[in-house]
Amino acid sequence: MPCGGQGRCGRCAVIVQDGAGIRRRSTLRLTPDDLAAGYALACQTVVEGDAVVTVPPQEKIERRLVTDKTATKVTLPFTYDPLQHQPMCLFPLALDPPNMVDQTDDWSRLKRAIADADLPLLGRWGANGGNWLNLGETADTGRATDLYADYPTLRRLGTTLREHNWEVTAVVELDTWDRPNGPPRLVDLLPPGRTEHLWGAAVDIGTTTVSLYLVDLLTGEVVTKAAEYNGQIRRGEDVISRIIYASTDRSSRKSNGLGELQSLVIDTINELLERAARRAKIRPSEVYKMTVAGNSTMIHLLLGLPPSSIRLEPFVTTINQPPPVRASELGINIHPQANVDCLPGVASYVGADISAGIIGSQMCDSSVLTLFLDVGTNGEMVLGDCDWLISCACSAGPAFEGAGVQDGMRATIGAIEEVWINSDTYEPTYRVIPSPKLEAQELPTPPQGICGSGLISLLSEMFITGVIDKAGNLNFDLGSPRVRQGKHGPEYVVASGNQTEHGRDIVITKVDINNLIRAKGAIYAGFTVLAQSVGIDLGMVERVLIGGSFGQYINIENAVQIGLLPDLPWDKFHFLGNTALQGALLALLNREHRSRIGEAAQKMTYLELSADNTFYDAFTSALFLPHTDMTQFPSVAEVLMEREEQPAV
Amino acid sequence: MPCGGQGRCGRCAVIVQDGAGIRRRSTLRLTPDDLAAGYALACQTVVEGDAVVTVPPQEKIERRLVTDKTATKVTLPFTYDPLQHQPMCLFPLALDPPNMVDQTDDWSRLKRAIADADLPLLGRWGANGGNWLNLGETADTGRATDLYADYPTLRRLGTTLREHNWEVTAVVELDTWDRPNGPPRLVDLLPPGRTEHLWGAAVDIGTTTVSLYLVDLLTGEVVTKAAEYNGQIRRGEDVISRIIYASTDRSSRKSNGLGELQSLVIDTINELLERAARRAKIRPSEVYKMTVAGNSTMIHLLLGLPPSSIRLEPFVTTINQPPPVRASELGINIHPQANVDCLPGVASYVGADISAGIIGSQMCDSSVLTLFLDVGTNGEMVLGDCDWLISCACSAGPAFEGAGVQDGMRATIGAIEEVWINSDTYEPTYRVIPSPKLEAQELPTPPQGICGSGLISLLSEMFITGVIDKAGNLNFDLGSPRVRQGKHGPEYVVASGNQTEHGRDIVITKVDINNLIRAKGAIYAGFTVLAQSVGIDLGMVERVLIGGSFGQYINIENAVQIGLLPDLPWDKFHFLGNTALQGALLALLNREHRSRIGEAAQKMTYLELSADNTFYDAFTSALFLPHTDMTQFPSVAEVLMEREEQPAV
Repeated sequence: MPCGGQGRCGRCAVIVQDGAGIRRRSTLRLTPDDLAAGYALACQTVVEGDAVVTVPPQEKIERRLVTDKTATKVTLPFTYDPLQHQPMCLFPLALDPPNMVDQTDDWSRLKRAIADADLPLLGRWGANGGNWLNLGETADTGRATDLYADYPTLRRLGTTLREHNWEVTAVVELDTWDRPNGPPRLVDLLPPGRTEHLWGAAVDIGTTTVSLYLVDLLTGEVVTKAAEYNGQIRRGEDVISRIIYASTDRSSRKSNGLGELQSLVIDTINELLERAARRAKIRPSEVYKMTVAGNSTMIHLLLGLPPSSIRLEPFVTTINQPPPVRASELGINIHPQANVDCLPGVASYVGADISAGIIGSQMCDSSVLTLFLDVGTNGEMVLGDCDWLISCACSAGPAFEGAGVQDGMRATIGAIEEVWINSDTYEPTYRVIPSPKLEAQELPTPPQGICGSGLISLLSEMFITGVIDKAGNLNFDLGSPRVRQGKHGPEYVVASGNQTEHGRDIVITKVDINNLIRAKGAIYAGFTVLAQSVGIDLGMVERVLIGGSFGQYINIENAVQIGLLPDLPWDKFHFLGNTALQGALLALLNREHRSRIGEAAQKMTYLELSADNTFYDAFTSALFLPHTDMTQFPSVAEVLMEREEQPAV
Repeated sequence: MPCGGQGRCGRCAVIVQDGAGIRRRSTLRLTPDDLAAGYALACQTVVEGDAVVTVPPQEKIERRLVTDKTATKVTLPFTYDPLQHQPMCLFPLALDPPNMVDQTDDWSRLKRAIADADLPLLGRWGANGGNWLNLGETADTGRATDLYADYPTLRRLGTTLREHNWEVTAVVELDTWDRPNGPPRLVDLLPPGRTEHLWGAAVDIGTTTVSLYLVDLLTGEVVTKAAEYNGQIRRGEDVISRIIYASTDRSSRKSNGLGELQSLVIDTINELLERAARRAKIRPSEVYKMTVAGNSTMIHLLLGLPPSSIRLEPFVTTINQPPPVRASELGINIHPQANVDCLPGVASYVGADISAGIIGSQMCDSSVLTLFLDVGTNGEMVLGDCDWLISCACSAGPAFEGAGVQDGMRATIGAIEEVWINSDTYEPTYRVIPSPKLEAQELPTPPQGICGSGLISLLSEMFITGVIDKAGNLNFDLGSPRVRQGKHGPEYVVASGNQTEHGRDIVITKVDINNLIRAKGAIYAGFTVLAQSVGIDLGMVERVLIGGSFGQYINIENAVQIGLLPDLPWDKFHFLGNTALQGALLALLNREHRSRIGEAAQKMTYLELSADNTFYDAFTSALFLPHTDMTQFPSVAEVLMEREEQPAV
């Protein structure tokens, strides 16, 4: 078994049906539910008398473990009603054609038709006695005088109406977050009968990864997903290096750092749109609304706002709550008159990804003291409940996103996502994210690199088995050929070239290890300072919600063992996946959630970590595995003790 | 004297100081005021006894006559208060710079400063207990949350604030006609202290001529004016030929008729802006608001809206009340985020030039039955008073604007603006719009062509002296070398080459004469049909207001004699100059006038002349000088009779 009988990999789980003669030595790997269901780890169990044990097929165990550790996806926390919940709608219209008696101009004619339309689509307004536009109108100007359109929409108006013989489908946006009472805006005119779909997109711009949901606004369904490395990576891996690059003052827009970074991320978004649209068999220009989450630097770069003040004391943004911007103004290839709604952030280092994330996680809906953590390139975290929120950010770097690590990669096909090291042989076993094609042929998928969860797992296994020490130094005394001197210093070979996709060894170097320790140290220091600032102990936290795109595959035990997460009972941790993207989806589908994101952003207190030395002290203390203060990690201490006491099997 | 003793040119006016022995034979040329002041025309006066007569210097008479015929300019009908009347304003701001305690984002910081600003500039809002933004705010979001900015303004925000060390002058537009309650919009941020001027522009796009006022919005003063032929002329002289050209469907925008016409008029506007800005020693980009009047076709072409439906039954526009459009969307070189407000029109052939014109003329302010006439390329007219308005349009063609006539030109330096023909010799005398430089040296300005008022005067003189007959045929029997067969048929030589600027003869051809008769016939037919439609006689009209850029120099007597204007007492005519431009100016300087233009446009009934045969019949009857029905022109009949009876002096 992968961990070599250390009770860590869980692969030897068996079901004890009659357990009278059984003694469980360690149950670390098992949850209370597992125990109640009769599970035991064979390697940690001494048979002292008669017992009936079922050994489940290996495949089944693996599935179960994966399911355990991945969070249930946040499904919509409401029953979606497109007409009730969000502002985009379709009006199937048949206009009276003009004649010599009725020479009304095209625009007034269209407005009249929309005002008179029978509107099953307009619950929110229609509920109001049928006078659906009453919020925006004034007494004497009639129902729909407030409908407006952008100039390019008006330019196409006459031609489109005549082309389709006065029968059209109008795409209307009833309101936006900053104009909750309208006026409604005509976004496009489609041919008649185009009422089957109405497309929207939710986007999360991570410093490392950009993710997109393509959503049918009529059903609320996420029809397809796509993710890709942020094209800006080639200009710097973390926000600070991006900001510096953006501030380079060159002559033209093309060779201007800010303009270039803006183009790079927009290219990435357009590529994702293209990919998602191809899968859904639509054109990207059929997307009529986009919501965008991202940290403040990402949002500034997307909008082409100079980000340099984010980096320099006193660390202020140009704008935390940007207004909706038309896609054409940014060059995003959805419908040119579609709104791109960048969600609101809190401060320079607590951005829209966090405010969207805490709404996506429903953290504010409960009085349970919650720690919310979004592990991306920055470690951003929020502590609080429905009454108060305090947040901070610590620059973790992109190591946990697979960047800045020699063989790091995104959590996609071919990524090693979990590792076990045999404590006797120091040989690793790993699980690779499978290629569906190879999986169908029952062939293994060869690894290409290690993703974030794989790195955490690897670091933890190396530490627990003694391949590295508390400080992360590789132990050359083990006699294992896996520990060797590489081109870039000491390294551990996770997979040798004959097993890998590309034929090269997959290794983790001392440099990688140092990066990972710094990253986890920064995050843990953030927890420490946040808890101190409100005078509580981390142990008082009742719930830890973990967002971030890589979050959902983290092995909690591993993350605690390296000191990335605080040492709390496993059942307090909830992996929510990409909460920022989830928040963007909620904002797209529900006005109320959109405004809650704004409220959360305004309500949240931001703790500036660079303002004093507390953070630096906490960071220094956290630069060990798991921490200098072992009393904060009792379960890890127990494992280490057990390992030393472990008798040979 | 120019008219050869016919009592028409008025050049022989003398002042009778003791008039016992004096008998006035004809006083047609003199107004009641003239008579009261003792004026008499020497050629029409018989000395029957002792008399004391003063002969004024010729120069003085000429000035007086010109002044007589030009209307007093419409000055602003209110005492201008920039803060009270219009929505553009300047905020001199000194922001608190951000610090580690106040990390508010730039945009919120600016909004806060504007909300807190001490606002002598904001009468309208400030009057409201100092809570000037209360119209747009909601109770819990604070005073200025509603301030918004276009995306490009936000992009410059951070840099501008820091460049000027947090001291700036904000240019804000408080409201627009379609959003009378705001929200206010930040248009630009200027360096501190830039509070001396705030520029706006009022534009009238005529089919032939584009005119512009550059206005200081802080004083309401028209600082400079500029006018130029509409660059679209090369693609057709009247609206119909422009519409046909715009409808040509070509591959790219560049070679596309509509795109080309849009570019041409925008080029003209930009040229005028450049010229006006140069005179005022500013840059065009310092202009923060523009209002535009023009007929519906001109507005459609400016906005790039396909105009073809204007020409085809049932003659509808795409939009009569266009929303404000940002200058950058059109390519107009004022500030890119400045609004271009195209004034509202009524119908395809009664456009914003007319609705602006009747507000510019103050026609709606009185219960006096008024006929309003705008003679441009189209003859557009409105009949009514403060309670009702009915309008129509007849395609007069550009003849009265000096286009479509061989030696026609705009009323600028070198244009013959008035002509007299000696009834004995058939020799013409003319007055040329002088070059100030030559005038200063007491040198005459050589003529280059004939402008609209000159053409009317010439046609009238040719008719009264018998150079042409009722049908406009040239009389070759006179024995005058001035009447000759030219390259393009019969013609009359107004100025021979040795007197002209360019050395070529200035002539009027039979073709020109026919064009002018058709133009005046169309306009008079319009009056006829309009009066008939409401069951009144033209003689009941109490006031005739004449707009149109060339209007102010028309000689009423001449215009009546050719049957262009109805035969009413002279004192009922008022020349108002370019009322459309005046209306655009009022709309720029006063919200209330802007909204009155919209109200007038909505209230006005439009009479579609092509809908029945009435117009065609009236037109056919008007294709003679002055008309087939001489009972409609008693004063002309009198002149013709007098001419025949005239004894040789």
